Amino acid sequence: MAQAPIRFGIMGCAEIARKVSRAITLAPNATLAAVASRSAEKAEKFASANNFPLNAKIYGSYESLLDDPDIDAVYVPLPTSLHLKWAVLAAQKKKHVLLEKPVALNVAEFDKIVEACEANGVQLMDGTMWIHHPRTAKMREFVNDVERFGSLKSVHACFSFAAADDFLKNDIRVKPDLDAHGALGDAGWYGIRAILWAADYEMPKAVTALREPVLNDAGVILSCGASLCWEDGKVATFYCSFLSNLTTDITAIGTKGTLHLHDFIIPFKENEATFRTSTKVGFNELVTGWIPLPSEHIVTTDLPQEARMVMEFAGLVGNIKANGARPEKKWPTISRKTQLILDAVKASIKKGFEPIGIAN
Amino acid sequence: MAQAPIRFGIMGCAEIARKVSRAITLAPNATLAAVASRSAEKAEKFASANNFPLNAKIYGSYESLLDDPDIDAVYVPLPTSLHLKWAVLAAQKKKHVLLEKPVALNVAEFDKIVEACEANGVQLMDGTMWIHHPRTAKMREFVNDVERFGSLKSVHACFSFAAADDFLKNDIRVKPDLDAHGALGDAGWYGIRAILWAADYEMPKAVTALREPVLNDAGVILSCGASLCWEDGKVATFYCSFLSNLTTDITAIGTKGTLHLHDFIIPFKENEATFRTSTKVGFNELVTGWIPLPSEHIVTTDLPQEARMVMEFAGLVGNIKANGARPEKKWPTISRKTQLILDAVKASIKKGFEPIGIAN
Repeated sequence: MAQAPIRFGIMGCAEIARKVSRAITLAPNATLAAVASRSAEKAEKFASANNFPLNAKIYGSYESLLDDPDIDAVYVPLPTSLHLKWAVLAAQKKKHVLLEKPVALNVAEFDKIVEACEANGVQLMDGTMWIHHPRTAKMREFVNDVERFGSLKSVHACFSFAAADDFLKNDIRVKPDLDAHGALGDAGWYGIRAILWAADYEMPKAVTALREPVLNDAGVILSCGASLCWEDGKVATFYCSFLSNLTTDITAIGTKGTLHLHDFIIPFKENEATFRTSTKVGFNELVTGWIPLPSEHIVTTDLPQEARMVMEFAGLVGNIKANGARPEKKWPTISRKTQLILDAVKASIKKGFEPIGIAN
Repeated sequence: MAQAPIRFGIMGCAEIARKVSRAITLAPNATLAAVASRSAEKAEKFASANNFPLNAKIYGSYESLLDDPDIDAVYVPLPTSLHLKWAVLAAQKKKHVLLEKPVALNVAEFDKIVEACEANGVQLMDGTMWIHHPRTAKMREFVNDVERFGSLKSVHACFSFAAADDFLKNDIRVKPDLDAHGALGDAGWYGIRAILWAADYEMPKAVTALREPVLNDAGVILSCGASLCWEDGKVATFYCSFLSNLTTDITAIGTKGTLHLHDFIIPFKENEATFRTSTKVGFNELVTGWIPLPSEHIVTTDLPQEARMVMEFAGLVGNIKANGARPEKKWPTISRKTQLILDAVKASIKKGFEPIGIAN
């Protein structure tokens, strides 16, 4: 008999929760079971606007959702400053935790979340969706291919978007007491993750923030960048910003190959995504053209990346529930690495752009 | 009556001189009049292999070419360390100078070349070809468009190629006494120029080399990067390398638009070139796709970019010859700016990656 779908509770009615609620609906092994907000009315509205099943429960507090024994897992899109409290409490209530990024205010906080999840045998995964797109698996094949890509030498990643005036004044992502990391947490998180992904999660030896980050009056980062370097000589840079046109790029260059894509976070289209590669390219003899030309690869997907994320997470939860499996450590491990680099960028800015060593 | 074509002398038989000789042949206002090498035999061979007219002169020394009154202009592809001597002597002999990049060992040397050219009323231009492609003019329209691009916030540029073992051992570009700038001069020159181009040649306030450049045993740069920042908060990074797969990118991000291209130095194909732009793009309401999608622009050209460079240069020379016009200062000015940033990157590496202020 097929396993019963994993029952999700949504903790908070953030914008992004709409997309993840749809993803839970789309994922074959997951179902929307409840939504909680600090106001039951708001939760009710959210449920009806987002196609929750009629039997889904509506809660006027996060605690009451966590006390519901018919909830297997929670999705936590709350402001970063609330992650520690609610993710730990969720774990203690034996709920598996799908946690929005950035995962915590710093690695020390995140470690407490990991500890709580481990102690209670629940799965922890962050909400970085693009990692779950089948395109990403295809790109991984390319980047890991000794013949087509060789060894990684350099990565550049970028995520910027032009936030509206209202966002720059009122969004939680520009408030020091809510999402204190600003553009670094919201946008830079993706650039850092892209770099780590390209490096197959090998940690750099040092991280140096680039000069002239832009901060708002409250000291929250609106735009910044950093460079990373590894023991073996590879290097990376990223740029993140709330102040410029939407751009989401990865360029990874190996000894033999290059990977390019311009829509790594959200593919241009939902059902198919492309990336471009070249291998051992050179100029022709008179240096008037390239041989061979780069190739474009198209990857189609039946389910959008966020539904695949939910499916992956629910699959792990199902395996724990049905077979007493141990939670998969891969996911909190890459969340932690991403957070560690994020912390280092902030530390480097604070220390006047000195390099911050990363312990191994 | 149409003006007689400008008569070019080629000083040295470098690989790149083959391409520029062809460009001179293609340009309607230029002609190959002579070639000089330290060996007349080598010059003779070069002339016959590169379709020189039968009446072209063959010289066994650079001096004798410079003494020929029937030569209007010289193309100088000699190693960087020889530019000062030969460009100055060419100017003194009233020859207009098309000078390969990097233009000099440092700005002080380049200033002597500029001085000699000004004193003798001859045109000076460096050999950066992509600036002359009609695509570049189209991209300039986009980047200068307040509605489509807004104001520039960030640029990333990259030029890397995987040099063969023989190049890494024997090429003049890895020899401290010949092309002492290594990958920074050969490849980084383009990244710096791309950044300056995107910034409409406004100089940054500071340049900071990125950590962990790769040097060879003789101390010549094989791979490095830098970050630049401007008074108004815009930032840029570039990466250059002899050690990774051929990659030539510009990403310029404005408040309202983004420009992408992956073949800025040499277009993938000779007769048409593309670039991609987006303006005021955003995610759709559920954040599952982009609105609108980026656009691809195709620019065709009857003459390759290097022939357009020659045509531009020969046009200026013709105007000086026929009408007593003053040499166009724009070209040496942007060469100097590029060299100044290049010098700053080297200085920053030398000073342990401290930022180097750029005087305005």
